Amino acid sequence: MSFLSIIDILGTFAFAVSGAFSAMEKKLDPFGVIILSFVTAIGGGTLRDVLIGDTPVAWLRNGTTTIVIIVAAIGTMLFGKYLKRFTSTLFLFDAFGLGLFTLIGVEKGLELQLSPGICVALGTITGSFGGVTRDVLLNNVPLVFRKEIYASVSILGGVLYLFLLQVDMLSHLATIISILFIVVFRIIVVRYKLALPKFY
Amino acid sequence: MSFLSIIDILGTFAFAVSGAFSAMEKKLDPFGVIILSFVTAIGGGTLRDVLIGDTPVAWLRNGTTTIVIIVAAIGTMLFGKYLKRFTSTLFLFDAFGLGLFTLIGVEKGLELQLSPGICVALGTITGSFGGVTRDVLLNNVPLVFRKEIYASVSILGGVLYLFLLQVDMLSHLATIISILFIVVFRIIVVRYKLALPKFY
Amino acid sequence: MSFLSIIDILGTFAFAVSGAFSAMEKKLDPFGVIILSFVTAIGGGTLRDVLIGDTPVAWLRNGTTTIVIIVAAIGTMLFGKYLKRFTSTLFLFDAFGLGLFTLIGVEKGLELQLSPGICVALGTITGSFGGVTRDVLLNNVPLVFRKEIYASVSILGGVLYLFLLQVDMLSHLATIISILFIVVFRIIVVRYKLALPKFY
Repeated sequence: MSFLSIIDILGTFAFAVSGAFSAMEKKLDPFGVIILSFVTAIGGGTLRDVLIGDTPVAWLRNGTTTIVIIVAAIGTMLFGKYLKRFTSTLFLFDAFGLGLFTLIGVEKGLELQLSPGICVALGTITGSFGGVTRDVLLNNVPLVFRKEIYASVSILGGVLYLFLLQVDMLSHLATIISILFIVVFRIIVVRYKLALPKFY
Repeated sequence: MSFLSIIDILGTFAFAVSGAFSAMEKKLDPFGVIILSFVTAIGGGTLRDVLIGDTPVAWLRNGTTTIVIIVAAIGTMLFGKYLKRFTSTLFLFDAFGLGLFTLIGVEKGLELQLSPGICVALGTITGSFGGVTRDVLLNNVPLVFRKEIYASVSILGGVLYLFLLQVDMLSHLATIISILFIVVFRIIVVRYKLALPKFY
Repeated sequence: MSFLSIIDILGTFAFAVSGAFSAMEKKLDPFGVIILSFVTAIGGGTLRDVLIGDTPVAWLRNGTTTIVIIVAAIGTMLFGKYLKRFTSTLFLFDAFGLGLFTLIGVEKGLELQLSPGICVALGTITGSFGGVTRDVLLNNVPLVFRKEIYASVSILGGVLYLFLLQVDMLSHLATIISILFIVVFRIIVVRYKLALPKFY
């Protein structure tokens, strides 16, 4: 199992747990909790694959994803109280997930030889659309549009990656640096409660 | 016209009527009522086809579906009061629709040689996502996540179908048994107001 | 640059501005405003392309769209107060956008040799689904289902276009007449506050 697929699983797990917590707050039944976990974890990659026409979409072809999500959802329902103690661990998983999912999205765009701006957009969609779907299904205005900087970190990480490739850095190294950039930036944002200024 | 396509039309009709009733409750205009009927009836199959990449999606290729839905929506607006008397008839259509749509979804997964869990997921998406879209458009938390067992019945019906195929039952017979299982289970659930236990 | 692509850009611009205004009313952050502009402007064409399987969807292949939208969103945030004075100009852009997007959708259906009713449906989806997505993300019941006639104008425009083609009018002339029909009809609807009668 490669380094990337391990982080992929951790990211999927973290996103699934976050979906399960949101669903439990809204008093959904266990089936609803599992679906929300699912949607949060696969929403971004699914929208990306549908937009570029890479179907059947990824999770239909990869059984591991489904198993990880169901384990995460049931685990959260059973041990939710204990997991809350590990908020900072979960936050790290989520940040890694955002980083990795962003890079996977950018890579997919490059494979299709789409323009740089579009590649970055695909990265951001992959990283943040799962959370948007979660919030829409739970009847909230999507968090990513309102609170602390989230998607913007993903955008900057994607731009950094394209820049590093441009200056002929090895693709492998550029990937790791960009993921770390996103993770560290997210930690700084959350620690110092950074938000985009509203200039209107 | 085959047996299955007749039930397909009845299921489409029932889902369309349920969408129209929901839209009328929220005081939408007649156009809104038709769209909600449409979305409720074709939402599940559309998401399934988009996810597996079987496009143009089914209702774009089959004019009958559109006609059935428009007739159902206009009929509900004109005769809504009388239809309410037939609630139990409508509920039966809906249950048959859920059964058939679930089986169609599972079958599509098998054709694509996807894994069993994914086939069941496609069945559940086909059977229940129309109602989810209806609720999201009307700004409700999707009913399927909150109330009496619905999607879980579809999951169990899908699993039963795969099991019957596994023990070498004729595909045709397995289909009928699984649809009846879903219909009967739904009747029991609604009569006895069964809900999933919340163990968190 | 052709006549149609100029109107396309104006329509995209107008839809993007309307998305930005809606987002600013709901106090989204600048990133949220840009995303809402984006979704409003490309939502209809994206759903159409996904349903018919014409992927990667249009805006992934056409960088101009993205630039126009970002300019529109940032411009609205900076100069929103001044733009409000030009409400009637914006309304005209929006009406032209609706007309053009409708015609593009119908044309796509004809290319795929889909049935007339389906072609009209694709036109209406292209013209009005961006606004639906905007409203769903902002947690409103979609405006198009509730207020003054909007999607119905698009439907009638699509039907008119198919009729004009049927009587052997030149495709180019039929396009212009149908767009003008939609624009003029929208002006009449808004000036006289026309709404569909609720006959239930």
